[in-house]
Amino acid sequence: MSDGNGQGHVVIVGGGFAGVGCARALAKHDAVRVTLIDRNNYHQFQPLLYQVATSQLAPSDIAYSLRKLFRDRPNVDVKLAEIAAVDPATRTVTAADGQTWTSDAVVLAAGSRPNFFRTPGAESDSFPLYTLDQATRLRSRILTLFEDADRSPELVDRGALNFVVVGAGATGVEVAGALADLISDTMALEYRDLAVSAARIHLVDLGHVLLGPFSEGSHDYAAKVLQRKGVRTHLGVAVTAVRPGEVELADGTTIPTHCVIWGGGIQAAELAGATGLVQGRGGRLMVLPDLSVDGAPGVHAAGDVANIPDRHGEPLPQLGSVALQSGTWVADNVLADFAGKPRKAFHYHDKGIMAMIGRGAAVAEVGPHHHELHGHIAHTAWLGVHAGLMTGVRNRVDAFLAWGWDAFSSGRGPQVLDRSDAARIDWEHEQAPESAVA
Amino acid sequence: MSDGNGQGHVVIVGGGFAGVGCARALAKHDAVRVTLIDRNNYHQFQPLLYQVATSQLAPSDIAYSLRKLFRDRPNVDVKLAEIAAVDPATRTVTAADGQTWTSDAVVLAAGSRPNFFRTPGAESDSFPLYTLDQATRLRSRILTLFEDADRSPELVDRGALNFVVVGAGATGVEVAGALADLISDTMALEYRDLAVSAARIHLVDLGHVLLGPFSEGSHDYAAKVLQRKGVRTHLGVAVTAVRPGEVELADGTTIPTHCVIWGGGIQAAELAGATGLVQGRGGRLMVLPDLSVDGAPGVHAAGDVANIPDRHGEPLPQLGSVALQSGTWVADNVLADFAGKPRKAFHYHDKGIMAMIGRGAAVAEVGPHHHELHGHIAHTAWLGVHAGLMTGVRNRVDAFLAWGWDAFSSGRGPQVLDRSDAARIDWEHEQAPESAVA
Repeated sequence: MSDGNGQGHVVIVGGGFAGVGCARALAKHDAVRVTLIDRNNYHQFQPLLYQVATSQLAPSDIAYSLRKLFRDRPNVDVKLAEIAAVDPATRTVTAADGQTWTSDAVVLAAGSRPNFFRTPGAESDSFPLYTLDQATRLRSRILTLFEDADRSPELVDRGALNFVVVGAGATGVEVAGALADLISDTMALEYRDLAVSAARIHLVDLGHVLLGPFSEGSHDYAAKVLQRKGVRTHLGVAVTAVRPGEVELADGTTIPTHCVIWGGGIQAAELAGATGLVQGRGGRLMVLPDLSVDGAPGVHAAGDVANIPDRHGEPLPQLGSVALQSGTWVADNVLADFAGKPRKAFHYHDKGIMAMIGRGAAVAEVGPHHHELHGHIAHTAWLGVHAGLMTGVRNRVDAFLAWGWDAFSSGRGPQVLDRSDAARIDWEHEQAPESAVA
Repeated sequence: MSDGNGQGHVVIVGGGFAGVGCARALAKHDAVRVTLIDRNNYHQFQPLLYQVATSQLAPSDIAYSLRKLFRDRPNVDVKLAEIAAVDPATRTVTAADGQTWTSDAVVLAAGSRPNFFRTPGAESDSFPLYTLDQATRLRSRILTLFEDADRSPELVDRGALNFVVVGAGATGVEVAGALADLISDTMALEYRDLAVSAARIHLVDLGHVLLGPFSEGSHDYAAKVLQRKGVRTHLGVAVTAVRPGEVELADGTTIPTHCVIWGGGIQAAELAGATGLVQGRGGRLMVLPDLSVDGAPGVHAAGDVANIPDRHGEPLPQLGSVALQSGTWVADNVLADFAGKPRKAFHYHDKGIMAMIGRGAAVAEVGPHHHELHGHIAHTAWLGVHAGLMTGVRNRVDAFLAWGWDAFSSGRGPQVLDRSDAARIDWEHEQAPESAVA
């Protein structure tokens, strides 16, 4: 794979945890040249998107310029492009605008996108929460609803303050809890003329528990915390349709709402299908235990776009730490290829799973045996794991300290409403059916 | 003016320095009820907009939620609305969406908007820098130009890296200096494939000096600093037209450019004309020395929307400190009206004028005698005056410290490119004339 003098060119598609982790590991080797390509000019710290959506953090708090991250790594070049096709045979990637890059090794790390499971209206009329753009769009929608209801209190009867979260995994539970905190701690104080107590949060999931992948103790703890916050849970029930002004559940319930937050699941990025490579569950690329793609020499996949097997062949979940570790692992195997050495099978160092359910309330199941923690100690564990992710991305050791200071000490709560048209709600045409009939 | 039991209702139109200063002063008096109305849900710290445009600060660093600013002031209510008309006779303000507020006193503090002086194409094809929206739009344009040139280096010949700043007042000089720093310190390191040294900044002004209102020593210092930074100045020459892809000067020069930054002057907000009140230079509302409007009892104006006379009857400049002080002064006169006491003539406590010309280089003319300072000591004075403005707006004494830490110590440089369509450049149709002919 090398070009003969020890130099190899690696193209990495995607600047998330997997892509950045891979690029950082490769950057240490002067003989390797890296081109890191992303559709955005920044890395987004995905686990905290829900904090942007609920005005706890500013978008800039969780976005880092990719060019700046690699400014002092002369062998890493960053390119802004949307990759539309990959030819595994020639290791050529092609952007939507026609640019192409051919390389000695391609690392596919394009991440995931929401999976709407063909739910009618979900794609057009709900608010997914997987990108920074989506998080700021959701934030604007939430703030706009409060402003519109403040101006026209009769809109409350039309569901202006009803929020429906679809999916009770970590994303759904985190956004439901944070939204409840925002409403009770902030909105109730700041909207004096508005009956903020009329606001309702509904959490809907097809499964019968909250935080499915967690243990039973965590299910119960999450349910207790959310109940205390006033979140209404609808478990064991599917969402059958999302329409402007309402959501319809399989049990016949319709909830008037102008804000359906989609945390219902993810699938591989569209790019996975444009490779011609074998896809597994959720469209994720099938990889060998060493994260290379069978039959496509020099092609590797890491992070959410890949169906990564654990030691027993079971797929690992789509987590930031899996992405970061798999990206770094791929770097080692690319270097092994270049050196003519054998690749190694990926070994995931399991740090556990965790979710914040609101201020001071978290669940964490830590370490390979998933030791269960709740409350403040879980919050501390949560901070620790995110510190690891953060320092895995940013260069400076003190990055997390600066971030922690910003994020948790200043409490500035950037409730800034974009004045974009996207935030505006067409109350004439987007309405609950009762009003439509009237 | 009082409603008989000592309670008075004051409507303030505009949440800039003048409006917030006025509301904060009135909030101390429990008997007064304040409605503060702005088109945005945030106060923007206007003197630092150029730092947002040049990726030194994030938008959230200079935007504060108005509701949050007054959260602990139960007698101040914040409303999000765009006021379209004012009836001075009934002290009624009407929003574009039909909402109305009638009050005992109206404070007009709607600020300013760019003045394009009927320059053809300037309004449609240049980037003014007076609102946060405009600053983020300009930031996206700058970053998009570098990305587009990185992708298609031939665009450099079509002016992709030419930036033209119109107006050599504080806004123009500050943005030109900061842009030069951004290009030399950041872009040159981060765009490895791009001939960043081909970037050019042009600064155009009809006048014959930089920083007109400053003294001769400051004119020369600013010229020297900008020259050292490579900024080309075109003084004594008017801009005759702005077109997509080029700007045309009165001396016959045309400069191919896709980024004309308009710092050419300001005029009163459109609202001034919707009051039926007498307007002076720049459309600003004529006020008596006590900042009330002659013949309109209970109507006051403060900040940039007003033509505020100094002790000699000369109009004061449109500065943050004039706005903040005049807003606070109006609060005292409104209270005097309510108490049946005489109003007092506004006395401006002149802290001087200052401008940053780039990292570590500033000019300041401090105090009522405008003692002239340059360089680092001017930078310190600049920080001091902005600390005063900042603490005039935010509640906590340590606000400035937190801000100073964020803004100057972390140096995170949020070069985050919005993926909005607004940022995209249509290179087929927006081109320099040479290319159009070809």
